[in-house]
Amino acid sequence: SSSESSSQGKPGADREQPRYETLVVTSEDGITKIMLNRPTKKNAVNLQMYQEIILALKAASQDDSTITVLTGNGDYYSSGNDLTNFTNTPPGEIQEKAKNSLILVREFVGCFIDFPKPLIAVVNGPAVGIAVTLLGLFDIVYASDRATFHTPFSRLGLHPEGCSSYTFPKIMGPTKATEMLIFGKKLTAEEACAQGLVTEVFPDRTFQKEVWTRLKAYAKLPSNVLRISKQVIRNREKEKLHSVNVEESSVLQGTVLSDEAVNAVMNFLSKRAKL
Amino acid sequence: SSSESSSQGKPGADREQPRYETLVVTSEDGITKIMLNRPTKKNAVNLQMYQEIILALKAASQDDSTITVLTGNGDYYSSGNDLTNFTNTPPGEIQEKAKNSLILVREFVGCFIDFPKPLIAVVNGPAVGIAVTLLGLFDIVYASDRATFHTPFSRLGLHPEGCSSYTFPKIMGPTKATEMLIFGKKLTAEEACAQGLVTEVFPDRTFQKEVWTRLKAYAKLPSNVLRISKQVIRNREKEKLHSVNVEESSVLQGTVLSDEAVNAVMNFLSKRAKL
Amino acid sequence: SSSESSSQGKPGADREQPRYETLVVTSEDGITKIMLNRPTKKNAVNLQMYQEIILALKAASQDDSTITVLTGNGDYYSSGNDLTNFTNTPPGEIQEKAKNSLILVREFVGCFIDFPKPLIAVVNGPAVGIAVTLLGLFDIVYASDRATFHTPFSRLGLHPEGCSSYTFPKIMGPTKATEMLIFGKKLTAEEACAQGLVTEVFPDRTFQKEVWTRLKAYAKLPSNVLRISKQVIRNREKEKLHSVNVEESSVLQGTVLSDEAVNAVMNFLSKRAKL
Repeated sequence: SSSESSSQGKPGADREQPRYETLVVTSEDGITKIMLNRPTKKNAVNLQMYQEIILALKAASQDDSTITVLTGNGDYYSSGNDLTNFTNTPPGEIQEKAKNSLILVREFVGCFIDFPKPLIAVVNGPAVGIAVTLLGLFDIVYASDRATFHTPFSRLGLHPEGCSSYTFPKIMGPTKATEMLIFGKKLTAEEACAQGLVTEVFPDRTFQKEVWTRLKAYAKLPSNVLRISKQVIRNREKEKLHSVNVEESSVLQGTVLSDEAVNAVMNFLSKRAKL
Repeated sequence: SSSESSSQGKPGADREQPRYETLVVTSEDGITKIMLNRPTKKNAVNLQMYQEIILALKAASQDDSTITVLTGNGDYYSSGNDLTNFTNTPPGEIQEKAKNSLILVREFVGCFIDFPKPLIAVVNGPAVGIAVTLLGLFDIVYASDRATFHTPFSRLGLHPEGCSSYTFPKIMGPTKATEMLIFGKKLTAEEACAQGLVTEVFPDRTFQKEVWTRLKAYAKLPSNVLRISKQVIRNREKEKLHSVNVEESSVLQGTVLSDEAVNAVMNFLSKRAKL
Repeated sequence: SSSESSSQGKPGADREQPRYETLVVTSEDGITKIMLNRPTKKNAVNLQMYQEIILALKAASQDDSTITVLTGNGDYYSSGNDLTNFTNTPPGEIQEKAKNSLILVREFVGCFIDFPKPLIAVVNGPAVGIAVTLLGLFDIVYASDRATFHTPFSRLGLHPEGCSSYTFPKIMGPTKATEMLIFGKKLTAEEACAQGLVTEVFPDRTFQKEVWTRLKAYAKLPSNVLRISKQVIRNREKEKLHSVNVEESSVLQGTVLSDEAVNAVMNFLSKRAKL
C-alpha cells in the first residue's frame, strides 16, 4: 500500500531508532513495524538478526505505538534459523558457537514472551522453523494464502523451540501438533487457520491492503486499554512459558552439541549447496 | 414450540418459584428454563436481572430438574451489561455504584462457575459483552444462525470478564481469542462454532424445535450420572476459574473507576441516545 | 496393502514376541503394529485383551521400532469395554469382579500415558467407549471416513475414563467435549477431525494404503530424535494425566459398584441379547 511505501521511504531517521542492517523498522499510525529484511536469503535469521530483533522489540515496547507488527520483506516471511551460521566455522569451534547461539535464541524467545503490547504477525509468505514455532506467542497472526508453515526439525536432529512444545498442543490439540512439530508435516495457510495457529487468511492479491487497513483501525483503540487486556490474557502464562523456553533450550543443547546433529546439519547444507 | 408456549402459560405458580420481574423461569420435562425477559431492551442485563439470575441459578441447582437452560425472549439473546444502569446516577455517585456493580457481577460469574448440573445456553439471537464471555462456562451452547457474538470492550475502556480471558484462549487459541476479546471482532454463529465456543448451529427457522427436541431427550438421561460426569470434567478447573474471576474483576475495578472509562461509557450512551 | 498381508503371514515368530490370543503384533519397517484381533466381537476389549495390550505396549517401548501403531482387525476399530465380561458372573461376585476390572483399566490407561515413543492410532472403523477416550493420549490419530466416535456412558450409568475428562475439553473445548462425553453424541470422522481429536481422515477405499505409506516414511526419521521430541511435548503433562486417571477410576469405582449401574449394564445386555 502507498502508506507502507512512504513509511519505508523515511526509515525512522528522526526517531532515534537504532540503525539495523537486517531489519527495516518504521513507526506510524500507532503501529511499529519490524520487517525482516534479508529477502535474498528468504529472511533467514542469522545471529545478527536475532540480536537486532531483540533490540527492536525492546524499543517498540517503550515507544508510543499501540501495536507492534512483525513481517517479512519479499516472497518469504522467514525461512527460520540460518543454518549457514555454522558453515564457515572451524570444526573445533562449532560446538562452542552452537552453545552461544542457543543462549541467544533463548533470550530472543523470552522477549516475545514478555512483550507487553499486542504483537501481530503479518505472514506474507512461507514460514519455516522458529518463524513458525514463535507464532504461538503472537496475539494475532494474519497470513497470505501463499504462506505455508513448516517445522522440519526431526530430519535435522533438532527439537521444537519457541515454546511450541507447549503452545501448539494447546492451540491445535496434541495430535495435530505432533504431526507438525515431530513429523514435519507442512501446513497450508488454510490448515493453519482451521487449527487456530493463524487468526485469518487473506488472498495474496489483497493481503497487504486488507491487513494494514484493519491494523490501522485497531491501532486507534485506546493504547492503555489494549495493553492491560493483553496482560490479563497473557500474564497468567508468562512464568510457565519462561520455564518451557528454558526446558526446550536445554533439551536442544543436549542434542545440538552431539556429533549426530552437527553431521545432520552439515549434510543438509552440503546437499543444498549442490543443487 | 407448543410445549414451550404452554410452559409459559403456567409460570410455575405451584412450584414455589420466586417471582421474577426480568426473567421467566419454568420447569418441566426435567428442564429448568431461565429466560431473559426484557425483549424491548434486547435483554440487557440490569442490576435487577443480575440478582434474579443468581436466585434462579441457586433454585435450579436444588430443584429436581436434570439440566438447566439459559435463553432470551425475543430477537436478542442478550445485549450484555445494561450501561444505562448509570445514566440516572448523579456524577458524584457513579464510582460507588460502579464498584458495587462489579462486586455483584463477580458473584454472578461465580454462580456459573459453581453450577453443579449441566448448563446449556440456547442462543436465540445476537449476544454481546458478558452474554458472550460467560459462554465459556456453559456445558453446551446451541446457537441460531441469526446469532452473533460481540465483545466490544476496548472502545468502552473495558476489559474481558466472565473468565473469558482464561476460557477463550483455551477454547479457540490465543490469536483468535485476542482478536475477539481485545480488538472487538464480531463472530458469526458459524465462526463461533468452528472455533469451539458454540457446540452446534441450527437454522433459525427450525432452531427452537430442533434444540428443544434434543434437550428433552438429553434430560431423560439419569440425572445423578450427568451431574457427577459434569463435575469430573469441570471441578478440576473450579479453583482456577474463581481466581480468574477475582483477577478480572480487580482489573476492571482499577479501570472502570477511572474518569476515562466513565467518560467513554457516557460518550457511547449519549451518541446512542441521539440516534 | 501387500506388505501388511505379508507381515501377518509371519507373525513375529522369530522376534521373541509373547504369544497373544486377542492381538496380532508384528514389527517391521521400524513400526510395531498392535492389531486388536477379535473381529467377530467388534474388537471389544475383554479382560485378557487389556492384559495383552499392556504387555504389547511394554514390549514395544523397548524394542527397536521407531513408532508404535494400534489398529483393529475387521470392520471395527473397537467397540470398547466388553460388557459381557460380567454376564457369566454370579450376582454375588459382580462387584468384586468390577472392582478388579477397574484396577486393571487404570493400569492399562497408565501405560498409554507413559508410552515413550510416538504412538499412532489407525482407526479403521467405528470406535466406542474406551477406544475413543484413549485417543487423547495418542500422538497421531488417522481415521477412515467409515470411522465413528461414540461414548455412550451416561445411559449405562458410567463416566468418562481414559483421561478424556481432561484431554477432550483441552482438545475440542468444553462445550463440544461435554455433548460427546456426557450426552453421548456420536461424531463422524470428519467432525472428530474438525475438533482436533483426529489428525486426518482418509477415504476408506485408500485408507490402509495411504496411511501405511505415510507411516513408513515417518518411521525413517531418527528414532532417538522422535522419542525425545515426544517427551518434550508430553512429559510436562504426565503427572497431571496420572492424577486424572486415578481420579476418574475412583469416581467410576463409586458408581460402577452401585446397584443402579449394574442394573443398567445388565438391562443393556439383555436388550441386546434379544435382538
